[in-house]
Amino acid sequence: MKINETADILRGRDDFLLLTHTRPDGDTLCSAAALCSALRRAGKRAWLYPNPEITENFRVFTDEWISDARPEACCVIAVDIADTGMLPIGFNGKTDICIDHHGSNGHYADCELVLPEKASCGEIILELIESLCGGLTKQEADLVYVAISTDTGCFCYGNTKSDTLRAAARVVDYGAENDVLNKLMFRSLSFSRLKLEGLIYAGMRSYRNNSINVAIVTLDMMRQSGATQNDCDDLASLAGKVKGSVVAITIRELSDNSCKASVRTNELVNASDICARFGGGGHAMAAGCTMELSVDEAEKALLKAVDEVWK
Amino acid sequence: MKINETADILRGRDDFLLLTHTRPDGDTLCSAAALCSALRRAGKRAWLYPNPEITENFRVFTDEWISDARPEACCVIAVDIADTGMLPIGFNGKTDICIDHHGSNGHYADCELVLPEKASCGEIILELIESLCGGLTKQEADLVYVAISTDTGCFCYGNTKSDTLRAAARVVDYGAENDVLNKLMFRSLSFSRLKLEGLIYAGMRSYRNNSINVAIVTLDMMRQSGATQNDCDDLASLAGKVKGSVVAITIRELSDNSCKASVRTNELVNASDICARFGGGGHAMAAGCTMELSVDEAEKALLKAVDEVWK
Repeated sequence: MKINETADILRGRDDFLLLTHTRPDGDTLCSAAALCSALRRAGKRAWLYPNPEITENFRVFTDEWISDARPEACCVIAVDIADTGMLPIGFNGKTDICIDHHGSNGHYADCELVLPEKASCGEIILELIESLCGGLTKQEADLVYVAISTDTGCFCYGNTKSDTLRAAARVVDYGAENDVLNKLMFRSLSFSRLKLEGLIYAGMRSYRNNSINVAIVTLDMMRQSGATQNDCDDLASLAGKVKGSVVAITIRELSDNSCKASVRTNELVNASDICARFGGGGHAMAAGCTMELSVDEAEKALLKAVDEVWK
Repeated sequence: MKINETADILRGRDDFLLLTHTRPDGDTLCSAAALCSALRRAGKRAWLYPNPEITENFRVFTDEWISDARPEACCVIAVDIADTGMLPIGFNGKTDICIDHHGSNGHYADCELVLPEKASCGEIILELIESLCGGLTKQEADLVYVAISTDTGCFCYGNTKSDTLRAAARVVDYGAENDVLNKLMFRSLSFSRLKLEGLIYAGMRSYRNNSINVAIVTLDMMRQSGATQNDCDDLASLAGKVKGSVVAITIRELSDNSCKASVRTNELVNASDICARFGGGGHAMAAGCTMELSVDEAEKALLKAVDEVWK
């Protein structure tokens, strides 16, 4: 389907239930919330299906749109959900419409608006709301801005195209407060998160001319920094910040003799091959495993596996 | 002057010397380099005046344009230089044209193209090259992208407007490799910089419910991390990353009883008022001073000054 055809289908229905994906991020949540707002402005009843995994950071954007209500005849829209395995915990019904930007979309819905050329689902929602309502409210603009900016790391990741920047410009013109939102999403960390990052960076280990980097997160660092689970988003990305990094390993201590490892690589090395040696797995550039070892033993074993996989 | 008038003046001259500011950043250096390239394409002789303070990161963008040559009759253009105090070390001639985006511009040049509504000088250079040459080469697009993105923290700082995002979109369409450049500028740090940040974060001190944050950079941390001056760009911004920060103080040890302090604030507190108490100064939201004290004594004195200024 195209944007206008999708808008026509939405005009023909009255009740909508919007789904967000498991381990929800800014794109799925804020895209769904923006569409929910626009549907209500178009005279419809619409709400977000509860997603038990929403983290503290995003509640402020989603809470007002979530409801347990679910009439029989509503039209179910999956927002930013690549396949049925990503449907929110607790949902097991049929999906009428899928709005998504993943090239890997599993084509599970009756109607599809899937545009893989978009960096974020937010950009599709922007065009859809423009088609449906003629423009965005300030609140919808804020939501779409969060969707686009979080999926592109504030326009820093490789998926950012010129059209992504233009879409962001358009939502800023609709009133999105990019400065306030950037500060909230990208420019501020809790004091304990900053302390934790500090301890991790200060203890980082680097091998083979900075191409292999290991970040260790011990229970003692968690205590020292006062960090809680809310402070632990995306720790696995920190080791890869080193210039020239090819293999970035993060080892998180669970107890004296147990830890969880995350391995991130670039196209030169298969992360999944490394983790498979310890009963784990994942994708070519992001994989993980659990190891019944101390962090130092785990590091040794992982470095040996890297040596074997990356010759 | 307007963009087109400036382009006309450039067309009327043959030899150009481009100046960049002291403690040069991506905007001054890459704006000047892009303009230098365009002037040569327009059939002119043009080069950058050597700037002894260029850091390693930026040499790759500037080296080919720099020359010691300086004929008598050349037209001198100051790029991104707000006042004569910021002219590059060693230059003491007259400035014919000033191209700048600082609202605080000191109006020291014979001709001025000063547009304070622009987030970066790069956006002015983009329009000027379009006017002069009808478009940008891939290399010029890369340079302008670096200029815009570094001055806006990859579109994350408060100076980013919708027009900034549109200008960036345009240079990406001219061929700027935003992904490669972002990785270089924003997504990778030297191992020693990361270690240094780690030691700074791990040692951060926070007061008044995280509203006052102090980062200490000792000579010992420099030694421990192996960091050099090349690893020390923008250390003054780190303390302000704490959620809720109003006053961010960075104290850098110079010797046993001497240190340099940087104070960054938001609109609630005047940074210059704080630093003036120690013979320093600067702007309302960014100021500095040198103190003949140990870092701990300096912290004490600065916290007392904050208490007096911010009641």
